[in-house]
Amino acid sequence: MSRRRLRLAMIGGGEGAQIGRIHRHAAALDGRFELVAGCFDADPAASVRFGREMLGLDPARCYPDLDAFLAGEAARPDRPELVAVVTPNHTHAPIGRRLLEAGFPVLMEKPLAVSVAEARELVARAEARGLLLVTAYCYWGFSLVQEMRARIARGELGRIRAVRAVCPIQWLAAPLERTGRPAAVWRTDPARAGPGGCIADVGTHAFHLVRATTGLVPRRLAADLAPLVEGRVLDDDAGVWVAFEGGARGRFWFSQVAVGRSQGLALEVFGERGALRWSLEDASRLHWTPLGEATRVLEAGRPDLDPVARAFARVPQGHPEGYIDAFANLYRGAAERLAGGTGTVGADLPDGRAGLEGVVFVETAVRASRRGGWVDWPEEMRR
Amino acid sequence: MSRRRLRLAMIGGGEGAQIGRIHRHAAALDGRFELVAGCFDADPAASVRFGREMLGLDPARCYPDLDAFLAGEAARPDRPELVAVVTPNHTHAPIGRRLLEAGFPVLMEKPLAVSVAEARELVARAEARGLLLVTAYCYWGFSLVQEMRARIARGELGRIRAVRAVCPIQWLAAPLERTGRPAAVWRTDPARAGPGGCIADVGTHAFHLVRATTGLVPRRLAADLAPLVEGRVLDDDAGVWVAFEGGARGRFWFSQVAVGRSQGLALEVFGERGALRWSLEDASRLHWTPLGEATRVLEAGRPDLDPVARAFARVPQGHPEGYIDAFANLYRGAAERLAGGTGTVGADLPDGRAGLEGVVFVETAVRASRRGGWVDWPEEMRR
Amino acid sequence: MSRRRLRLAMIGGGEGAQIGRIHRHAAALDGRFELVAGCFDADPAASVRFGREMLGLDPARCYPDLDAFLAGEAARPDRPELVAVVTPNHTHAPIGRRLLEAGFPVLMEKPLAVSVAEARELVARAEARGLLLVTAYCYWGFSLVQEMRARIARGELGRIRAVRAVCPIQWLAAPLERTGRPAAVWRTDPARAGPGGCIADVGTHAFHLVRATTGLVPRRLAADLAPLVEGRVLDDDAGVWVAFEGGARGRFWFSQVAVGRSQGLALEVFGERGALRWSLEDASRLHWTPLGEATRVLEAGRPDLDPVARAFARVPQGHPEGYIDAFANLYRGAAERLAGGTGTVGADLPDGRAGLEGVVFVETAVRASRRGGWVDWPEEMRR
Amino acid sequence: MSRRRLRLAMIGGGEGAQIGRIHRHAAALDGRFELVAGCFDADPAASVRFGREMLGLDPARCYPDLDAFLAGEAARPDRPELVAVVTPNHTHAPIGRRLLEAGFPVLMEKPLAVSVAEARELVARAEARGLLLVTAYCYWGFSLVQEMRARIARGELGRIRAVRAVCPIQWLAAPLERTGRPAAVWRTDPARAGPGGCIADVGTHAFHLVRATTGLVPRRLAADLAPLVEGRVLDDDAGVWVAFEGGARGRFWFSQVAVGRSQGLALEVFGERGALRWSLEDASRLHWTPLGEATRVLEAGRPDLDPVARAFARVPQGHPEGYIDAFANLYRGAAERLAGGTGTVGADLPDGRAGLEGVVFVETAVRASRRGGWVDWPEEMRR
Repeated sequence: MSRRRLRLAMIGGGEGAQIGRIHRHAAALDGRFELVAGCFDADPAASVRFGREMLGLDPARCYPDLDAFLAGEAARPDRPELVAVVTPNHTHAPIGRRLLEAGFPVLMEKPLAVSVAEARELVARAEARGLLLVTAYCYWGFSLVQEMRARIARGELGRIRAVRAVCPIQWLAAPLERTGRPAAVWRTDPARAGPGGCIADVGTHAFHLVRATTGLVPRRLAADLAPLVEGRVLDDDAGVWVAFEGGARGRFWFSQVAVGRSQGLALEVFGERGALRWSLEDASRLHWTPLGEATRVLEAGRPDLDPVARAFARVPQGHPEGYIDAFANLYRGAAERLAGGTGTVGADLPDGRAGLEGVVFVETAVRASRRGGWVDWPEEMRR
Repeated sequence: MSRRRLRLAMIGGGEGAQIGRIHRHAAALDGRFELVAGCFDADPAASVRFGREMLGLDPARCYPDLDAFLAGEAARPDRPELVAVVTPNHTHAPIGRRLLEAGFPVLMEKPLAVSVAEARELVARAEARGLLLVTAYCYWGFSLVQEMRARIARGELGRIRAVRAVCPIQWLAAPLERTGRPAAVWRTDPARAGPGGCIADVGTHAFHLVRATTGLVPRRLAADLAPLVEGRVLDDDAGVWVAFEGGARGRFWFSQVAVGRSQGLALEVFGERGALRWSLEDASRLHWTPLGEATRVLEAGRPDLDPVARAFARVPQGHPEGYIDAFANLYRGAAERLAGGTGTVGADLPDGRAGLEGVVFVETAVRASRRGGWVDWPEEMRR
Repeated sequence: MSRRRLRLAMIGGGEGAQIGRIHRHAAALDGRFELVAGCFDADPAASVRFGREMLGLDPARCYPDLDAFLAGEAARPDRPELVAVVTPNHTHAPIGRRLLEAGFPVLMEKPLAVSVAEARELVARAEARGLLLVTAYCYWGFSLVQEMRARIARGELGRIRAVRAVCPIQWLAAPLERTGRPAAVWRTDPARAGPGGCIADVGTHAFHLVRATTGLVPRRLAADLAPLVEGRVLDDDAGVWVAFEGGARGRFWFSQVAVGRSQGLALEVFGERGALRWSLEDASRLHWTPLGEATRVLEAGRPDLDPVARAFARVPQGHPEGYIDAFANLYRGAAERLAGGTGTVGADLPDGRAGLEGVVFVETAVRASRRGGWVDWPEEMRR
Repeated sequence: MSRRRLRLAMIGGGEGAQIGRIHRHAAALDGRFELVAGCFDADPAASVRFGREMLGLDPARCYPDLDAFLAGEAARPDRPELVAVVTPNHTHAPIGRRLLEAGFPVLMEKPLAVSVAEARELVARAEARGLLLVTAYCYWGFSLVQEMRARIARGELGRIRAVRAVCPIQWLAAPLERTGRPAAVWRTDPARAGPGGCIADVGTHAFHLVRATTGLVPRRLAADLAPLVEGRVLDDDAGVWVAFEGGARGRFWFSQVAVGRSQGLALEVFGERGALRWSLEDASRLHWTPLGEATRVLEAGRPDLDPVARAFARVPQGHPEGYIDAFANLYRGAAERLAGGTGTVGADLPDGRAGLEGVVFVETAVRASRRGGWVDWPEEMRR
């Protein structure tokens, strides 16, 4: 909560949109951003009304649609310094493209796009213009995820042998799409969600955590994407194995039919000299086991954690770090990057390339599953 | 994050003050407040510098001390609509008195004051002027604490028989006050912390949770306040038993020498027909056991929780609710109250009376401990 | 499971008696004992029938009552080498006295007796005759309880400052005694259970664990024994504070009305240099926190535990140690003692003096509670 | 502990053999067996010495080798009524064959054999002679595993959609085979362990639990068996996916390099109407979530569990059920079966066919892994 607030705009996130509300809390938490403009709903009147009445924005900066937003905001001297996009998956690329064309830095809900081609184009465009492009892999923002990254980077685990990443959730265990609930309808529709269901919705989060914490690069991948609820086309349960460069194995499982598990995201990294274990169900504790010794329980906020992990944490030791704390680190990092340099939190901010990798992960898994065997990770992604 | 932001000032919370930073995050999270003024440090130059450089405030509204703050802010048309006080305990009452005199609503760090007389005066003054006075019992703000309250209020537990409240923490297990760490120095000094050590620092939090969730009124109380670290005068470990009106028993234990327990606040309420269990160590789950049945695990954010509990929660089910989420509900409630009416979150906001009760709890426990037996809860507090 | 089995007899433990069945499993587990005789029920015919039909014993050694048992067994060359007594509390002393008079070593269910006078007499009698007298404090037998003991004895915690011992259970939350359930009827009846309810039934277990692991000697004690279920005379909820020699404080809470807690026995010892935490709800893990460091999770069966703890454990690391494993260590220790010497498990076997201390604990707590203040721990128990 | 004890013999399990000791505890716990004979070590002298000195058996019945055992025991009128085989994997079939030929019922450590051909032969031989053949899948014996089975059988979960089974263990994370530790040497040697490493050592346990609790029949299977420790030939980390008849998916992961996880066996079954979750790390609690409701925690020993689950449990509610309790149910079931009929515990005792299935699971997974794709579950196993 310091210095001038950066101007933030938002596309999507209107009435009833949970993720838009979360983004607004996250942007506010550190006092680095001020929401100043946006269009919030596919319905033009609802869009304007939401911005004015629910968010209390300057009425002149609440727009009925993206065209109007660009027309009204692009030329303002006080134009937004970051635009958050929180719309359904299939609109990410077209919206992102236009924002980047207009010179706006973008913070994009994940997945970055629904096809690799689209994602590549966004990344190329952002890099060509030198614009910040963030992919909102929110779980990256937990301080103990950063502690994992730091300890692995310092070599405390030795060579990594195996990585387990799971994300069982229950939200599509009932056929909600038949009840017309909007989020369920578009997420189970390939035309709007893309070729991956569960693998895209929750798998990409987990895959990003694996990449961000271990740095391991896939060499090839096998997958089994299964729609387990009757009538569903996209996978709602997915197994993935990854053979990484260097010989480590990834064992991943994601599910949207996991009754009893609200959000079971968990990550476990096994090395020659030790292992780390973290889960969202116990997000403020990290389990560290040096080979042959007893497991240590590391709490968020401990003074002896890595300086980066400490920078990510806002809570005193022993107090729970929340989902919004983690999410807010995306905005904190973005603010650091927009201020020039990288900052401590912004240094490894999930960027467009991280978003692209997620889409490659989905497409490669879809191919592997159709083929019923292993497929290579694209050569050009291995650098 | 809606409508006009309310103007907030802060007294205390400068360089290195953890709790001040938490208050700023908490005030920011919902976008209901904007920090506009304050004095932040006992050192006048540091106070001004902190406000200007670290918080980026209008330099004219960064004051060297309370006198200057009052002189500068009291008469402004855009004067602060709430003042947060986050200074050491013994200054709460003198600062609060002057702020209330000047007509400012106050959000006071706990304890409200270091003596019952002082606390009474603050309450009387606020009530006489019709000013909001909030005591920052932050754990009240967890949505599942509110779920406890709602279920007990609805009678789901039947008559309450026993309440266990514990708060083991480790932070004073080493004699930190001898190393000169400021927070440890003043918290172990009766002149600045008041007559209670552990009982005031952590016990009042727990006592407030008991009162807020159960509504039980004490009839008499026994206590054993012990300084267990050599050289310490104030208790760093405290046992309290409460005989409540109606026959229920309170079994409380608080400790600051509990190595291994960063913040072990926990609350358990046993009734004739069921029991509820919650702890800060697992803050996003509430355990509910109907008599004779299996225990249910209720997660924060579940759609079937009480509407009040849902209003307190910002997170989707299965995602951790953080300490700052809880803390922010004090500010959310204050915003609702300052807007007139009570609001959903503000309805039972910990007020000056709750703060007074905490100080009475400390003084009564001190008397009981000295006497080595039971003492009555003051008659005038039993209404 | 080695060498000749020792001959065991049992008094009590007939049809429907859960604890008798547990004793038989415990005696069998290591193959050190063979049940050869007994009387099992207050009903003479049922006693004989149970031994013959359910236990398959030699019909000649199944007796209708204690008189017959003594008449039949005392003079046999192959007479029992240990007699387990698993009858209601008030019969412990009279039965124990006669067994000891007849020269039988005795393993007595806890409490050893319902009055200090009775308990003293049993101890004196056993000591005079040089007979083994074991009090069945079964939780002592968990290997990680022994690990606590070993670490404290080695000085790893430094001077002990505080000990928390709790045992919330739910079994008397409903007024079961009014439904005629035998165990509930006698346990709530002072004539058969003695002067303590909850304090005797579960509190003595916890007190023994404190004594066995820390060696701390009480100096004085305060208690609040409350019957919380209507119509009950004996306490079903008890708070006890102990001021130990040397300055440490004990904070104890026991309850039989703790809905949702089947058996919440837990022990936590806080020293100057570290702390240990164990609970029956997670009995195969011990939490060890060196001051200022992260908590370690020590699993039963680890090769680096204390040799005594390893001797108590039968399970491979990572496999749960059960209640019966713990209980069986009473019999293992008894077998070692009956073989001469002390053995590893038998060295600190809960003996008659430990049983006497439990009864003193109950009587002292009853006095303190009635007085509403502190009372001294009896001088003669302080050695 | 009733009626006449059955005579038990043991092959293997001598000095230092942990699993042999566990079998002896398990056989003793309920007092249904008495160990009377055996050969215990590959070294003839050590074999005889162990039986005489460590086990205290009749010296005449302690044999130097299997030939001598058969010669001495087969014709005795009091010959063993069950023979437990606890030798290395590759000797199971040859030993089992000779025991069955001689008319002995056999309780075989898992895996039943190291090849499907061998396993088939054992099963055929046992069935032809009408002899009991038990495969020691010990985790089957936990009462809450039986509760899972009962609830699934009653249809409480509806159609099953997905089954997760994992078993991470750490014991081969270091290259123990290079240090000469016997169990590590033979378990990493294909000539003695068979074609599967981790998949056979821990995977078969998990697969059996899936089959025993769900009854689901595999249709095809994909696997990735990886040796992750340098120099190892057999897999020490294995992923398996199973497509079951009816459409459910199995997601399995087993590892012997999982530092920090002593024994992480866990099973989770997701159905249309609810889900069940159990793990060895919390073996005395089963989590049951009806679709759309809060998760229930079911403790071992609860009176409202299924009668079969209650029959498996020996502990009072709230007390930990141990590994040996579970293991002992194999012997309890065997005793019931040897007594004629099936008994409650013996009704679904893991038999030779269950052992054969385990070996088929290993061989099929090995084939699938080599092929890098899916292979069919053998037609003849689908009945």
